[in-house]
Amino acid sequence: MNDLCRLSANEAVERINQGKLTSEELTQACLERIEEREPEVEAWMHLDAGYSLAQARERDRAAIRGPVHGLPFAVKDIMDTADMPTGYGSPIYQGYRPRADAACVAMTRAAGGVLLGKTVTTEFASRHPGKTKNPHDPTHTPGGSSSGSAAAVADFMAFMAFGTQTLGSVIRPASFCGCVGYKPSYGEVSTEGVKENTGSFDTVGLFGRAVEDLPLFRAAVTGEPVRALEAVSVKGLRVGLCRTPLWDRAQDYTQALVEGAAAQLAKAGAAVTDLDLGGPFTDFEPMGRRVSDYEIARALSWERTHHFDLLSEFQQGKMKDWPVVSYDEYREAEGVMSACRAYLDEASKAFDVLLTPSATGEAPEGLDNTGDTSFNILATWTYVPCVTLPVFKGPSGLPVGLQLVGHRCRDHRLFEISRAVLAALSS
Amino acid sequence: MNDLCRLSANEAVERINQGKLTSEELTQACLERIEEREPEVEAWMHLDAGYSLAQARERDRAAIRGPVHGLPFAVKDIMDTADMPTGYGSPIYQGYRPRADAACVAMTRAAGGVLLGKTVTTEFASRHPGKTKNPHDPTHTPGGSSSGSAAAVADFMAFMAFGTQTLGSVIRPASFCGCVGYKPSYGEVSTEGVKENTGSFDTVGLFGRAVEDLPLFRAAVTGEPVRALEAVSVKGLRVGLCRTPLWDRAQDYTQALVEGAAAQLAKAGAAVTDLDLGGPFTDFEPMGRRVSDYEIARALSWERTHHFDLLSEFQQGKMKDWPVVSYDEYREAEGVMSACRAYLDEASKAFDVLLTPSATGEAPEGLDNTGDTSFNILATWTYVPCVTLPVFKGPSGLPVGLQLVGHRCRDHRLFEISRAVLAALSS
Repeated sequence: MNDLCRLSANEAVERINQGKLTSEELTQACLERIEEREPEVEAWMHLDAGYSLAQARERDRAAIRGPVHGLPFAVKDIMDTADMPTGYGSPIYQGYRPRADAACVAMTRAAGGVLLGKTVTTEFASRHPGKTKNPHDPTHTPGGSSSGSAAAVADFMAFMAFGTQTLGSVIRPASFCGCVGYKPSYGEVSTEGVKENTGSFDTVGLFGRAVEDLPLFRAAVTGEPVRALEAVSVKGLRVGLCRTPLWDRAQDYTQALVEGAAAQLAKAGAAVTDLDLGGPFTDFEPMGRRVSDYEIARALSWERTHHFDLLSEFQQGKMKDWPVVSYDEYREAEGVMSACRAYLDEASKAFDVLLTPSATGEAPEGLDNTGDTSFNILATWTYVPCVTLPVFKGPSGLPVGLQLVGHRCRDHRLFEISRAVLAALSS
Repeated sequence: MNDLCRLSANEAVERINQGKLTSEELTQACLERIEEREPEVEAWMHLDAGYSLAQARERDRAAIRGPVHGLPFAVKDIMDTADMPTGYGSPIYQGYRPRADAACVAMTRAAGGVLLGKTVTTEFASRHPGKTKNPHDPTHTPGGSSSGSAAAVADFMAFMAFGTQTLGSVIRPASFCGCVGYKPSYGEVSTEGVKENTGSFDTVGLFGRAVEDLPLFRAAVTGEPVRALEAVSVKGLRVGLCRTPLWDRAQDYTQALVEGAAAQLAKAGAAVTDLDLGGPFTDFEPMGRRVSDYEIARALSWERTHHFDLLSEFQQGKMKDWPVVSYDEYREAEGVMSACRAYLDEASKAFDVLLTPSATGEAPEGLDNTGDTSFNILATWTYVPCVTLPVFKGPSGLPVGLQLVGHRCRDHRLFEISRAVLAALSS
């Protein structure tokens, strides 16, 4: 392997800025890695090596544009690109070429990023899987819906990739593939030009290999300057162990790993206590699914009314009767979501960060099912930021992540805490 | 004039359902009206009479599909259509033909509507005006940004039209053109396939000629069954006269008209009291504009970074420095918006409906400026539904609307109250 593809994003950018490395060399390293691994992993929907290298050479000739200058990145094929086909994981959009780049893509390119290609998504970022395999074992799912982005970054084919999370589409595949996943606060990154699934929940997220690399891309898409991660002490850090009402769905080993991490943090001086979600959270899951069922069938109105036969059986089943729930039922469910957001915002004031599983366990065997989202809905539907860290291994030796949940709009602070937690768990 | 184009939507649909009228006859009446008036009003960006009639004949042959079967409607050219060009009011999108219909368009067609064509929008539903004139006086603006939709409906060229409101783009042009405008609760109608301006505020709205017609289209886009408007008594109705902190910007005659309406309702037995907006509303306008400035520059990232020279001078000025405000300033402003929403939800519990101006006055002379949005931001940014009723005339004889503001997600109730208020003011 060309080791350049294993650099951290920060290191790669620094070397480019210092003139010690070209974007072309970096891109070439990614392309070599893709050539080697893609036949097994199948992370990509669209790739064009010549075009990627041309972009890279253009960056090498130009002045430094922004915080990710020269860095190869990947984009989930649910996001529009003006110069690459965009299929949304559906045959309905075969050969579709949008007029414009999605806002997050345009901003990342304006900040100097080199777009390598489009990564596999499940159908409309929902459940029907694409072709991608888990890079650690091709008989296991990579998770979904951002399957290709997670696999590509975890497998060193790209330095960073965009995904989206509506239920658990960033954190779960990052946990399964063994990379860092970041689901921002709702609204943190523009969804303009991203095919809508559930507008009330859709959040653009990021895959990377280190927490320290996330601020680079976050700066590109928020307009914030790149801010260094300040040191946070685990001593006295108020950690809430949040098992959630769905704790029973976690594998025994997952429960033990998360509780073990909590104990290790306590030993390092953190103030670890339980956060039990009561109040409106009794109905959290069914009510959130109701919002999602209503909104996706509404967002896909054209596809539903014009190309029903080209939808997967799964999606057909979800949308054959419109409305899938009545308007009043939908609005009732939305009300529960609002109440849960207010409840969590209040309850989490007593904590600096929450600990919870990233997934029920390792990536399940087989490619038909992208896995269980039970531990992802909490942060997504309440709009708070979360990060998954690749810190555990499951009984089959596959990765298992640990999820950290922060305060709404305090995403940078969550990065800082995540780095401290990671250091404490690694020591 | 072929008088069929003056029917109410309810009456037209009823006649079609009873087999007394064909969609083709109705569409032909609209087309004749358009032929007569379009040279002066210029409400349309795209029209194809033959195609409209073909759609109508298809409806006439088919079984009744839904609540707006056979009814000709119009769509603001900020919304995607698979079979008509979509320009977003910008030369950047000249000749653009999206792959799919926007969700609200697809749903309305699935409910039987006949799409006549695309109506003029300002550039990206922002301030730079299109070609449309006020149908009451072509030397005056029709208002914006849904200029063509307001003019087309007010001038009997279509029975109903979709618009969008981010600041005041439905209520203001409806007031200026003299038709009914309805800006739903935020999220009530899907924005999928609608070009984003300010995601946090963008709301799909409707133009019609009677409050009674609004439930037909609302049913089409929410999946609710069409519900009749229940009778509401003005006697005892708790009416809040809400002058807003920007009252001074209303013309003297507008202030007198709104206060006169309040007095008339009180005389009819309504319990009219003042609602003064305090608390977080001190900073409401500058903070909301900050959210809007940040989000539109972010949403138009591709246009900004690839086609800056094709943006209007106005839009260039707004977006030349990205980010236009810092991320922290943006999030601070969002926090004020949330606080205002909570404040208004609480304060308005004491009222069934609020009365406030629809605009500062009549449509101003000239076509360069689409008018003042000062009285539209309250309902848009706080997510509550509002309706403008064409009840007044200004000193030049041009229409002036009265705005009624309801409770979030109680849109149907607002229709019922609006009908009662209209009856009381007309008696």
